[in-house]
Amino acid sequence: MSSEYVPGLEGIIAARTEISMVDGANGRLVYRGYVIADLAEEMSFEEVAHLLWYGRLPTRAELDALTLELAGSRTLTEAAFSTLKAMPSDTDPMDVLRSVVAVQGVEHRLQKPTIPLAIHATASFPTILAGFHRLQQGLEPVKPRADLGHAANYLYQLNGKESPPELVRALNTYLVLLADHGMNASTFTARVIASTDSDLASCLVGAIGALKGPAHGGAPSAVMDQLEQIGTAANAEKWMRAARQRKERFMGFGHRIYRTYDPRAKILKAMCQRLNPKFYELASKVEETALAILHEEHPERPQATNVEFYSAGVLQAIGLPKEFFPPTFAVARAAGWTAHVLEQVANNRLIRPQSEYVGPEPRKPIPLAERG
Amino acid sequence: MSSEYVPGLEGIIAARTEISMVDGANGRLVYRGYVIADLAEEMSFEEVAHLLWYGRLPTRAELDALTLELAGSRTLTEAAFSTLKAMPSDTDPMDVLRSVVAVQGVEHRLQKPTIPLAIHATASFPTILAGFHRLQQGLEPVKPRADLGHAANYLYQLNGKESPPELVRALNTYLVLLADHGMNASTFTARVIASTDSDLASCLVGAIGALKGPAHGGAPSAVMDQLEQIGTAANAEKWMRAARQRKERFMGFGHRIYRTYDPRAKILKAMCQRLNPKFYELASKVEETALAILHEEHPERPQATNVEFYSAGVLQAIGLPKEFFPPTFAVARAAGWTAHVLEQVANNRLIRPQSEYVGPEPRKPIPLAERG
Repeated sequence: MSSEYVPGLEGIIAARTEISMVDGANGRLVYRGYVIADLAEEMSFEEVAHLLWYGRLPTRAELDALTLELAGSRTLTEAAFSTLKAMPSDTDPMDVLRSVVAVQGVEHRLQKPTIPLAIHATASFPTILAGFHRLQQGLEPVKPRADLGHAANYLYQLNGKESPPELVRALNTYLVLLADHGMNASTFTARVIASTDSDLASCLVGAIGALKGPAHGGAPSAVMDQLEQIGTAANAEKWMRAARQRKERFMGFGHRIYRTYDPRAKILKAMCQRLNPKFYELASKVEETALAILHEEHPERPQATNVEFYSAGVLQAIGLPKEFFPPTFAVARAAGWTAHVLEQVANNRLIRPQSEYVGPEPRKPIPLAERG
Repeated sequence: MSSEYVPGLEGIIAARTEISMVDGANGRLVYRGYVIADLAEEMSFEEVAHLLWYGRLPTRAELDALTLELAGSRTLTEAAFSTLKAMPSDTDPMDVLRSVVAVQGVEHRLQKPTIPLAIHATASFPTILAGFHRLQQGLEPVKPRADLGHAANYLYQLNGKESPPELVRALNTYLVLLADHGMNASTFTARVIASTDSDLASCLVGAIGALKGPAHGGAPSAVMDQLEQIGTAANAEKWMRAARQRKERFMGFGHRIYRTYDPRAKILKAMCQRLNPKFYELASKVEETALAILHEEHPERPQATNVEFYSAGVLQAIGLPKEFFPPTFAVARAAGWTAHVLEQVANNRLIRPQSEYVGPEPRKPIPLAERG
């Protein structure tokens, strides 16, 4: 047994996967052999979920069947709905999602993760989030509509009415773009939990918790906060140089893997320009300034606009409040998380690294009475 | 960046820790410089929790303060209590714990893990489990009693009356023995989630999900199931040889680390003999037979009775139904999980390994209409 401390497990390969590849050198994201640019604006979320779960794109009949099964699985259990209604209205929607997914997945007897369970879990995320959004506004949750696709129904449940096709399409593209991304902290969390032979809901709840962290998925709303502080394109350079003086980070920049422009950011940027011109005007100036300043500071580093930067503009255009950006990331990633769990359990081995003890050498305890 | 696939991350050191050491070669478990045998029957769970959280044993005044703070933090929030009451009565208590801990920890704004938050979370586990146990029986949950210690109060809330001191002491010893154990799948899960700068409840909920897996903490009730099937000491050898013919595993044996007898199992075995002679008679015969058969099959392997084997007898003696064995493990481990989260965030680095893509090479997708 080798023994080597690897901080952050950087460079260690924890899994072999057929699900996705992040080709950082070439700026490519690949889902089971298809580059993201070929999927993002052509395929429905359902089509891509089929690809991730079953390993291939569906035929028309398979797609219809999956679409129906997802649409038929959107209702919450009674316990999950009670939990949703009990949430204080100012709760972080990520915590609402974590909690209600935990309840929605309770079981009497341990079940092995399966595709039908993956479908059921994935279908429930929009109902939970949209239901909470309604309750926050003092409105009753809207029942899901089985005739709408995943993206369209999420917007319908959020707003109580259908959204324009352009926005449905934008959300669908966002969901496809964010559905998987190789090994990341939340997917890794899901696989570690799966490796103990636990149930699917436990894996998802752990993954949601990991995604919540600002070092992972918790940043999109921070992008919006920073843009709000900057205010106008004219103010960008002045504000941003001052921010660097204060040692503040620019939100939405930096990634451990991509050496070129993130292919998802590229697509989202074009969508922003079309759907959210006001955001785009400010954001593109902020991006230009951020990249220039970062280049001055570290000319050796690649351009690093990450997926969260333009996600913010797309999700805003769709009508989502910024607290709903991270959990909407989870709506997308549910497909990837569940696919990774299924892959992990299909060829399982407990993921159990070691720790190195650097505490005191064993000695006898002093009895309480003598500890003063 | 090195790139090496390490199945199960075996042998990789994912963290340096001062919290505990599993010295497998010498059969020692050490908490911050004290061997478990010196702590298990001498110290209260509160004393050991102080050791794990603060890094040293408390003075009398510090112990009194911590005991008070734990005792004062046992009440569930309104939302958590509603969730508890909404649970179907046949729910796996691990899922109840996962769900209600998720709700108990909801927050409006992300909070960094702290010792006070660790105390609050740890204090809530017995209330959740005991409350559910009462509800399952159609009884009202019992309010916690601030004048009782962690172990005594758990039994009080479970049963609605105080337990004999001998059983309180036994539960306390169990909680101390199981409070931490170096790097294991659930502790690792908690640290991965913490490494994204997420909140403490998210870490705990992930850890509970990992502990649920039969390859980790989900086995103690399986020990009981197998003993029930064996039935009598006289039947042990016959049943067990037949089980091996059917390729069945013996439950409660095997560990990746200990090369000698698990020091916790040794203490629990002596407790079983005293507290649960009927269980002990059967279990010790089953253990003897299992070790003999395992030795015949693999003479090179060490004796491998694990902590779960005699845990079952102790928890049964205490009066816990077997479905409550795994979540009672979580009651103990809450102290260790939270200590590891605090250690992780004190010197944080995102835990984010790589994956190796072994799927198809990128190619163009066939349009839906042509997929047949």
